[in-house]
Amino acid sequence: QLKSELNHLPAVDVGDYISELPGERRAIAFRLLSKGCAIAVFEYLPTEIQEELIEALHDTQVCQIIEAMRPDDRVALFDELPAGVVKRLLPQLSPEERAATATIIGYPEGTAGRVMTTEYVRLRQGLTVGEALAKIKQSDRDKETIYYAYVTDDSRKLMQVVSLRQLVFTLPDTPIKDIGSDRVIKVYTETSQEDVARQMQRYDLIAVPVVDREDRLVGIITIDDVVDILQEEATEDIQKLAGVASGEDSSLSSPWSKLQNRLPWLLGIMALYIGASSSIAPFQDTIAKIPVLAVIMPLFSNTGGAVGTQALTVTIRSLGVGEVTAGDTLKILGKELLAGLGTALGLGLTMILLALIWTPPDERWVALVAGSVMAANSIVAVTLGTLLPIAFKQVNVDPALISGPLVTTLLDTIGFILFLSLITLSVNVWHL
Amino acid sequence: QLKSELNHLPAVDVGDYISELPGERRAIAFRLLSKGCAIAVFEYLPTEIQEELIEALHDTQVCQIIEAMRPDDRVALFDELPAGVVKRLLPQLSPEERAATATIIGYPEGTAGRVMTTEYVRLRQGLTVGEALAKIKQSDRDKETIYYAYVTDDSRKLMQVVSLRQLVFTLPDTPIKDIGSDRVIKVYTETSQEDVARQMQRYDLIAVPVVDREDRLVGIITIDDVVDILQEEATEDIQKLAGVASGEDSSLSSPWSKLQNRLPWLLGIMALYIGASSSIAPFQDTIAKIPVLAVIMPLFSNTGGAVGTQALTVTIRSLGVGEVTAGDTLKILGKELLAGLGTALGLGLTMILLALIWTPPDERWVALVAGSVMAANSIVAVTLGTLLPIAFKQVNVDPALISGPLVTTLLDTIGFILFLSLITLSVNVWHL
Ligand SMILES: [Mg+2]
Ligand SMILES: [Mg+2]
Ligand SMILES: [Mg+2]
Ligand SMILES: [Mg+2]
Ligand SMILES: [Mg+2]
Ligand SMILES: [Mg+2]
Ligand SMILES: [Mg+2]
Ligand SMILES: [Mg+2]
Ligand SMILES: [Mg+2]
Ligand SMILES: [Mg+2]
Ligand SMILES: [Mg+2]
Ligand SMILES: [Mg+2]
Ligand SMILES: [Mg+2]
Repeated sequence: QLKSELNHLPAVDVGDYISELPGERRAIAFRLLSKGCAIAVFEYLPTEIQEELIEALHDTQVCQIIEAMRPDDRVALFDELPAGVVKRLLPQLSPEERAATATIIGYPEGTAGRVMTTEYVRLRQGLTVGEALAKIKQSDRDKETIYYAYVTDDSRKLMQVVSLRQLVFTLPDTPIKDIGSDRVIKVYTETSQEDVARQMQRYDLIAVPVVDREDRLVGIITIDDVVDILQEEATEDIQKLAGVASGEDSSLSSPWSKLQNRLPWLLGIMALYIGASSSIAPFQDTIAKIPVLAVIMPLFSNTGGAVGTQALTVTIRSLGVGEVTAGDTLKILGKELLAGLGTALGLGLTMILLALIWTPPDERWVALVAGSVMAANSIVAVTLGTLLPIAFKQVNVDPALISGPLVTTLLDTIGFILFLSLITLSVNVWHL
Repeated sequence: QLKSELNHLPAVDVGDYISELPGERRAIAFRLLSKGCAIAVFEYLPTEIQEELIEALHDTQVCQIIEAMRPDDRVALFDELPAGVVKRLLPQLSPEERAATATIIGYPEGTAGRVMTTEYVRLRQGLTVGEALAKIKQSDRDKETIYYAYVTDDSRKLMQVVSLRQLVFTLPDTPIKDIGSDRVIKVYTETSQEDVARQMQRYDLIAVPVVDREDRLVGIITIDDVVDILQEEATEDIQKLAGVASGEDSSLSSPWSKLQNRLPWLLGIMALYIGASSSIAPFQDTIAKIPVLAVIMPLFSNTGGAVGTQALTVTIRSLGVGEVTAGDTLKILGKELLAGLGTALGLGLTMILLALIWTPPDERWVALVAGSVMAANSIVAVTLGTLLPIAFKQVNVDPALISGPLVTTLLDTIGFILFLSLITLSVNVWHL
């Protein structure tokens, strides 16, 4: 009865159930599944477990599963499997499935060509609605979605799109060219997966056709995969901002991969910080004379960093979701600087008040200098946080690489030099 | 010919075109649209421009548009319009559309009930496939999607789901109960929009039914809206992590809203930092004696903050996408701490090397203390960054509220006290 239960649950739930079993019982549970079910469940398993099952199951069963997988999911699996295993499996595929796999693997990672599937409905121009429906019915089982069908000429050039909704409710002898839409939203094989996702989000599509440079239809991308892409891209942005190099860490990643993702970047930040610390070193005499400086400096360093991180994050996210482009630089900077002026005023005044807590009576003037530097640092912070990501985007480098701590490091260097110079100047020149 | 061009472009593109026109020409351009087109385009305009058009257009046209809008989009519009305008428009709706609007507005913001639409296909139990298709055809124009139809009993209790794909390719006199699926993935009106999005992503659905506590069907949520929800939620998480209070800032927000979103939170961080600064203040004598401390302290503050931010960000994102739950705490902490040990070792050693740059010969021991504190601070950083968000999640507070700078503030306080106490102890007790 476990068997019948497993065969009726949604495939993704069965996948989770099997993943959580102890290693030796996974293959046993998997063998309980009916053939159709096994294929569906296999696609939802994590790659390590797929690998494990490929070793544990009989070769004929493995071949059946690999043959029946969706081409896009098969490519994702082959990307992760050891080359030796792929070499063993590939020749056992039917010629069509092997061709589909080869086509997709031929495109670079992160492009539309690499995430598309080749299981779409293509209709020849000149069919009637009735003929189109008959054709769709005949190939139904094989397709990822039949809700959109794509009309091509004899050279596979994409001409029109027609929805199942239109086909079902039109008289059978209407020519499909009368109901199809000529303005097809499409993407190219080399379009980045992020741009594909933005297009589908913009036009509210559940599938988008992928064409080559000659406008020939080569595949489609479906919304379920785009949802995953959008999530990956958001995770990547969020993590890169925090200085996780790959942008692919997860709470459950191995300690070793965490270390590789984080330590080199931290060491880089420390090396960069030699600049900030070296800018303090020449002023050690001043600090020995006025030790309250060491109390105040961390306060504006921490706050200035926070101001920069806010501006940086908002800018990177707006660039990321395609809300703004480099063309909007002046408009964005204007708004950020106006808000930044308010921030500078508020933080500068607060800094003066707080600094007064720790400054002894004859060093009250230090609080004024601290307030001014806090205000200046806020303006610099907003400017850097806004312009750096736009500049990176402009030269086609991922803006999310400018992580928050990189900006705080820059800001500390600028802030410390400004603050300590002003104080030293005040002491030496005006003898305060 | 502009007119014919506008009437053939995708609605979202026409919406963008109109939004970018100068104010006085927007209503003129909008009047060029055919009725069907005007309705479609209106839904894609930003709220300010929708408002503007409601004032500029003739009341009959406004009523036509509002009447034809999808109920979920109408509610989103009413949420933004001044109460007076809503009061004027509401009574002019047909009874059905008014009822649909009232139903949706009745549910709290951010729940499934509030983002659902009431334009779904409902089939009574006991129909045949042929009857079902006839029913769908008859109400086709009104529905957001017809690719899934939901089967209910006479009290609207949700019994089955059947796809258009199944209906189209089954013989007309088959009872739908023979082809429908009994295991319907559904959400409740009070389910949060984030959970709805995760469910649809998990099960690769293009629409999900919404039921009330008695399991009666009240609406559906479609994937295009879920894509927007996922994006909003990611933006919210990313921005809250950086200390943007609402999580809804954009590069193009008004300076005033930016200031409101950011300044109060920055002032809070400054106030909290009184703790860190106050922990330095008692040690001013030590600093006056060994001013190189002021050179070293910012270095481990900046680096420790970066370590904490990495762990915090990875944990918040993993919680956010539902990859882990509070139940995984020990497993997560174990992995993070193992990686943290490596980090602590690497950063501690680097700290010693760097500190040696600035310490004079008779204060070389300070570098050793700095290295140990850097290592200890890294471990604390990883622990706080991992446990704080899980604890917040556990008590049902949004973990994204624990922003990076909040953690850096805590870490600075701990780090400064530890470092300065150790140094003072070394000087006073061991007379180093
Ligand atoms: Mg196939
Ligand atoms: Mg959309
Ligand atoms: Mg797919
Ligand atoms: Mg998929
Ligand atoms: Mg990206
Ligand atoms: Mg990417
Ligand atoms: Mg309606
Ligand atoms: Mg999915
Ligand atoms: Mg909708
Ligand atoms: Mg929508
Ligand atoms: Mg959230
Ligand atoms: Mg939310
Ligand atoms: Mg700091």
